Amino acid sequence: MITNQLISEIKKKQSFLCIGLDVDLNKIPPYLLDTEDPIFEFNKAIINATHHLCVAYKPNTAFYEAYGLKGWKALEKTITYLNTHHPEIFTIADAKRGDIGNTSTMYAKAFFEDLAFDSVTVAPYMGKDSVEPFLAFKDKHTIMLALTSNKGAFDFQTKTIDNKEVYKHVLETSKGWANSENLMYVVGATKAEYLADIRQIIPDSFLLVPGVGAQGGNLQDVCKYGMNNSVGLLINSSRGIIYASNSDDFAEAAANKALELKKAMASELSHYFKS
Amino acid sequence: MITNQLISEIKKKQSFLCIGLDVDLNKIPPYLLDTEDPIFEFNKAIINATHHLCVAYKPNTAFYEAYGLKGWKALEKTITYLNTHHPEIFTIADAKRGDIGNTSTMYAKAFFEDLAFDSVTVAPYMGKDSVEPFLAFKDKHTIMLALTSNKGAFDFQTKTIDNKEVYKHVLETSKGWANSENLMYVVGATKAEYLADIRQIIPDSFLLVPGVGAQGGNLQDVCKYGMNNSVGLLINSSRGIIYASNSDDFAEAAANKALELKKAMASELSHYFKS
Repeated sequence: MITNQLISEIKKKQSFLCIGLDVDLNKIPPYLLDTEDPIFEFNKAIINATHHLCVAYKPNTAFYEAYGLKGWKALEKTITYLNTHHPEIFTIADAKRGDIGNTSTMYAKAFFEDLAFDSVTVAPYMGKDSVEPFLAFKDKHTIMLALTSNKGAFDFQTKTIDNKEVYKHVLETSKGWANSENLMYVVGATKAEYLADIRQIIPDSFLLVPGVGAQGGNLQDVCKYGMNNSVGLLINSSRGIIYASNSDDFAEAAANKALELKKAMASELSHYFKS
Repeated sequence: MITNQLISEIKKKQSFLCIGLDVDLNKIPPYLLDTEDPIFEFNKAIINATHHLCVAYKPNTAFYEAYGLKGWKALEKTITYLNTHHPEIFTIADAKRGDIGNTSTMYAKAFFEDLAFDSVTVAPYMGKDSVEPFLAFKDKHTIMLALTSNKGAFDFQTKTIDNKEVYKHVLETSKGWANSENLMYVVGATKAEYLADIRQIIPDSFLLVPGVGAQGGNLQDVCKYGMNNSVGLLINSSRGIIYASNSDDFAEAAANKALELKKAMASELSHYFKS
């Protein structure tokens, strides 16, 4: 998917919501456990109930790998379901991969070709030649960790090198990489005021923002500091939506939570993009 | 596996060789492609021919994920084969994972419980709460990226914060994490002289050293600067061993290459550990 398609989808749906499909068998309605593929059945119900309210879905691969072959199969079925029934939806494999060059190419093939995701998240620690193999794929997007939303972000990411934080070095350095126009960045919403500085460095890039809701971020602040004139934001919510209920009404409850966020986003969009 | 078992295996075999099982279907003997599971058949033949010469095997997960379900199944069969026939061998899932706390726990379950690897490699960028969930597993090892062997290592890892390189901050900080005795570290062999400094910070930890051979590292230098009084080294070779030949004799050719490295290692061990 090219970026313009994502932007026009956001404008059309008046939403920049990404829903995290992090399926934990201990948290889904128990009756689903009797079906042949509980993980996929859960995802399908969530997708059917929410696809008109969001522009992206983001399965975190950890939750699938934890269930071995069964889990990997459910991931395959989920992405195939999305690509078949909702090709307008932007898909993110939240995998946080990264390795030496030829190995990163194998990961890129796994997520862009075999599974046909639109994008994958990667970790920056191994530098340029660990990320460029992902960037080489046309019309695919590589979403690099910059400033994450967890406590551990302060262990290394915010340490300063020559008076500049590590995550800012990561942002600046990556701008010089081949096909850097295919980069997006993960920036946690728990530190919305950091977004102003980040926008100085990467004014045009899309940001994937986790941590609104469960991790304490605030939607208004994220928009105030992070929105650009192509919107430039995808805000993710996982547990707050998909586990809104664990009874028969889980999909409806998820849709209600997604609708709340979508309405708040529509209000922000109308504020910043007056027609 | 506890560390003492690994050390005693090294002493017994006079080898600290780790063989990387990075199976690329374009590089294996073409006749194997006609078998039901070429990846597993290749691994089984390599393992049968080399297990007496090495103390560890390290499949890089990228090479399995690139083949989707088939690949994941081959990975499962490979680790089961190793745990069944060679439980004395230390197994490493080279996965370079890392995510927020509850998600890292899912990855840890995937590799330590579902696949029953002895260890997994992780990336440090997200800090303490992204790594500690792995460290919580008893008798399992978490091998964290410190200084990698690729060019991109110089993009961020060797930048200095308060006159100290990022990778040294990573090493020092990690010593304070819960269950840090379960940590090992990835340190590239292309910069053997860095090992002296690294040993100042983590004198007792095991180091997984890639890059001897294909990536240009030198065995003598690695031992000179990196060995400690429990050996403390696992030296990995992947392509140099497993792709020594792509004809019918590939397993024998792999064994010959492994034997060369094993002999060089035995010589180093006899030099540093005079009986």
